[in-house]
Amino acid sequence: MAEMSGDHTGTEQARASSRIQASIVAKRQGAQLPAADIRGVVDDYVNGRVPDHQMAAWLATIACRGLDLAELTELTDAYVSGGERLHLGRLGRVVLDKHSTGGVGDKVSLVVAPIVAACGVAVVKMSGRGLGHAGGTIDKLEAIPGIRLDLGPDDIYALVERVGMTIVSQSPALAPGDGATYALRDVTGTVESIPLIAASIVSKKVAVGASGLVLDVKTGAGALIPDRSEAGLLAETMLRLARQFGLTCGAVLSDMSQPLGRAVGNALEIKETLSFLRGEQVPGLWEACSVLARLLLQSADPALCDADADARIAKAVAGGAAHERFLEWASAQGADRRVLERPELLPGAKHVVPIIADRAGWVSDVAPRAVGMASVHVGAGRLAHRAPLDHGSGVWVNSHVGSRVEAGQTLAELHYNGGDHDLAVDLLTRAFTISDEPVQAPQMIHQIYPSHGPVD
Amino acid sequence: MAEMSGDHTGTEQARASSRIQASIVAKRQGAQLPAADIRGVVDDYVNGRVPDHQMAAWLATIACRGLDLAELTELTDAYVSGGERLHLGRLGRVVLDKHSTGGVGDKVSLVVAPIVAACGVAVVKMSGRGLGHAGGTIDKLEAIPGIRLDLGPDDIYALVERVGMTIVSQSPALAPGDGATYALRDVTGTVESIPLIAASIVSKKVAVGASGLVLDVKTGAGALIPDRSEAGLLAETMLRLARQFGLTCGAVLSDMSQPLGRAVGNALEIKETLSFLRGEQVPGLWEACSVLARLLLQSADPALCDADADARIAKAVAGGAAHERFLEWASAQGADRRVLERPELLPGAKHVVPIIADRAGWVSDVAPRAVGMASVHVGAGRLAHRAPLDHGSGVWVNSHVGSRVEAGQTLAELHYNGGDHDLAVDLLTRAFTISDEPVQAPQMIHQIYPSHGPVD
Repeated sequence: MAEMSGDHTGTEQARASSRIQASIVAKRQGAQLPAADIRGVVDDYVNGRVPDHQMAAWLATIACRGLDLAELTELTDAYVSGGERLHLGRLGRVVLDKHSTGGVGDKVSLVVAPIVAACGVAVVKMSGRGLGHAGGTIDKLEAIPGIRLDLGPDDIYALVERVGMTIVSQSPALAPGDGATYALRDVTGTVESIPLIAASIVSKKVAVGASGLVLDVKTGAGALIPDRSEAGLLAETMLRLARQFGLTCGAVLSDMSQPLGRAVGNALEIKETLSFLRGEQVPGLWEACSVLARLLLQSADPALCDADADARIAKAVAGGAAHERFLEWASAQGADRRVLERPELLPGAKHVVPIIADRAGWVSDVAPRAVGMASVHVGAGRLAHRAPLDHGSGVWVNSHVGSRVEAGQTLAELHYNGGDHDLAVDLLTRAFTISDEPVQAPQMIHQIYPSHGPVD
Repeated sequence: MAEMSGDHTGTEQARASSRIQASIVAKRQGAQLPAADIRGVVDDYVNGRVPDHQMAAWLATIACRGLDLAELTELTDAYVSGGERLHLGRLGRVVLDKHSTGGVGDKVSLVVAPIVAACGVAVVKMSGRGLGHAGGTIDKLEAIPGIRLDLGPDDIYALVERVGMTIVSQSPALAPGDGATYALRDVTGTVESIPLIAASIVSKKVAVGASGLVLDVKTGAGALIPDRSEAGLLAETMLRLARQFGLTCGAVLSDMSQPLGRAVGNALEIKETLSFLRGEQVPGLWEACSVLARLLLQSADPALCDADADARIAKAVAGGAAHERFLEWASAQGADRRVLERPELLPGAKHVVPIIADRAGWVSDVAPRAVGMASVHVGAGRLAHRAPLDHGSGVWVNSHVGSRVEAGQTLAELHYNGGDHDLAVDLLTRAFTISDEPVQAPQMIHQIYPSHGPVD
């Protein structure tokens, strides 16, 4: 949240106060906000001429009433305004960005970036930390000893040139308007708003300045926006918005009705990523990753057909190039390569408790929020802001929706060193539902929006 | 606005923070808020466990989504909770309250209270100061030398017993939840919300504890809620809400499309009130006042028919009892009776500028906000919080909508001692529109909701 500054004259404060109040009333009454007012309000807030309570009322009103594309474009541009920007264009090649709205066991970025880089297309990804039940890419990577993620522009440019990819932590200097308003939204119940999510995500992508962007919008019980049609609306809103800024943009609407893959937790997910890149089959994960990798390759080369893209992706994994690219990249960012070559050296858990099926049947639900919170309660995520993590803890999901299980079979394992493991076991046990009737596995990809196609 | 207190434990703050955030999300998604949450949020805010920015988001969300009667009843009760209350019931007689949503030249309370008191029905009125273009009863009364308006419960009880009426300034100790949230609404564009207005007004009336209440809801360009159907909705909402608390409640939807009566400004309105109570005819004012007085008398006596009520009102004015009651009451609150007997001794203006019709025709508009702001710019109202007033300044409106005027005739007079009189003259000149065609005077009373009748 922005701090009120004492440097402003009474007149400036009064003008700022009048403008934001009129803007709140106008938006509540259904008006389209003028561009100058949107830019002015954000600038006033970032520069301390508008206090938190007025900005909170403005954001809450927008969360209720929405924004059209013109308003949303102004808001996004205002978020970026006055902040740092990367200049990836000077690298003289296509550089792509990938973003997921997050979920439980979502290691898609870690898998897709080295595959795409191994196929010759550069990827720059700025990531965040876990939030609530959902993990964060930066937390996962910090399970790797030695890795540095807080890199500046020059390091980013050098990594793109040297290994064709980088994953770094989000810089607060990019899109300062988003940073200030996000902290306020986080405590005022205004996170789950489609226009505010879209402006927040796209503003950071605009500041990163990649030539193209591929979005993985999750839907289902473990997603930020569980409802499928709402998630579709978010995807379409972000596509239209990103294209307003000249970014090539594609998107996938993908399943988050159960944990993605088997690993949930930081080192566990790095281990699964490395196994996957060595060619191990993981249910659901291949489908999600291959579609996203294909969209990224086609963003860089619109003429590339699906079959050719898929063949290049399969070859990059099967031939070991993607795995090698992950190790090259992580080592270039300081990771201990020997650990990545022997993943059993990554942080682990002293205790593993199996969750046992009490009856035979078909798994009909693996509640993703319960699984995510089980991992949080043993230290894989945070219950309090900035709490330290236990990188070795988490959940290993053995059975997914649609699996046949017998009584006594292990459904999942809780890996822990401390934390409230009784609560975690309880959450995990309740997360599984077993049906007497066969159950279909959920569809992984609900919709694909090609980077060079129309939005609808 | 409430101040955050450092006395609370982290757990209390965290619980309060979770509750208000969940409440914001639920309300935005269209849920009915549970009673305990509404009470809890208001209590947390009043007691400093919730900061301004969270409360602002909560209020802004309610302003967008509305509240049903059950929610509104809880909010109103929560506003009253923990505050002082009057115990008018111990006086052993019917005591009525009257409230107007305010406007330009609205001296109805000053006229109606002594009429009703002279008819034997006690009236207790807590009033506020002017706001924007609209005057306030307390500002008007302060034009009378010696009058004391900041009275406590014992003085109020004594005045009701002795003169059957009192008008005092609103005590901030009544309905503390309303006081805290009103200050926040005032700077966050959330004043003009029907449920929030209704809860604010009715909570103060509940705390005053009269047995009945009559509301004068203004509609038209000079009203807080200009739109007639919206104003009707406000009237009906307040009626239903007041009745939830066991108050007998009636209401009038009355015209504020032009200034009410001739005087706009503090001493000018006291002079007009005294003239009116001495029997002088003032266009529009009689109709507004007699309907409200009738509703008040019928609140006290449901068997009283319109004709009998009107006869008693007419007699109280014509016989001088209402005028005498005003003087008795004001003197009992310290007013210099000699000044009220010779109103020319009230504060006046050194300068009077006539506004002249530049053509003949029929007056088709007397823009009430322009007239109100003209009076504000010569000191009859405030441009800044707590600014001192010039009680002698204001506007005298000679011609109302529907009047035939000739070129050169005086439409209005600006009375001033200082201030920006050029701007005021300009505003006042532009306030009048003259048409070539005859124009109907606006209907004064749009709707009457009897105190003992159904709401619709």
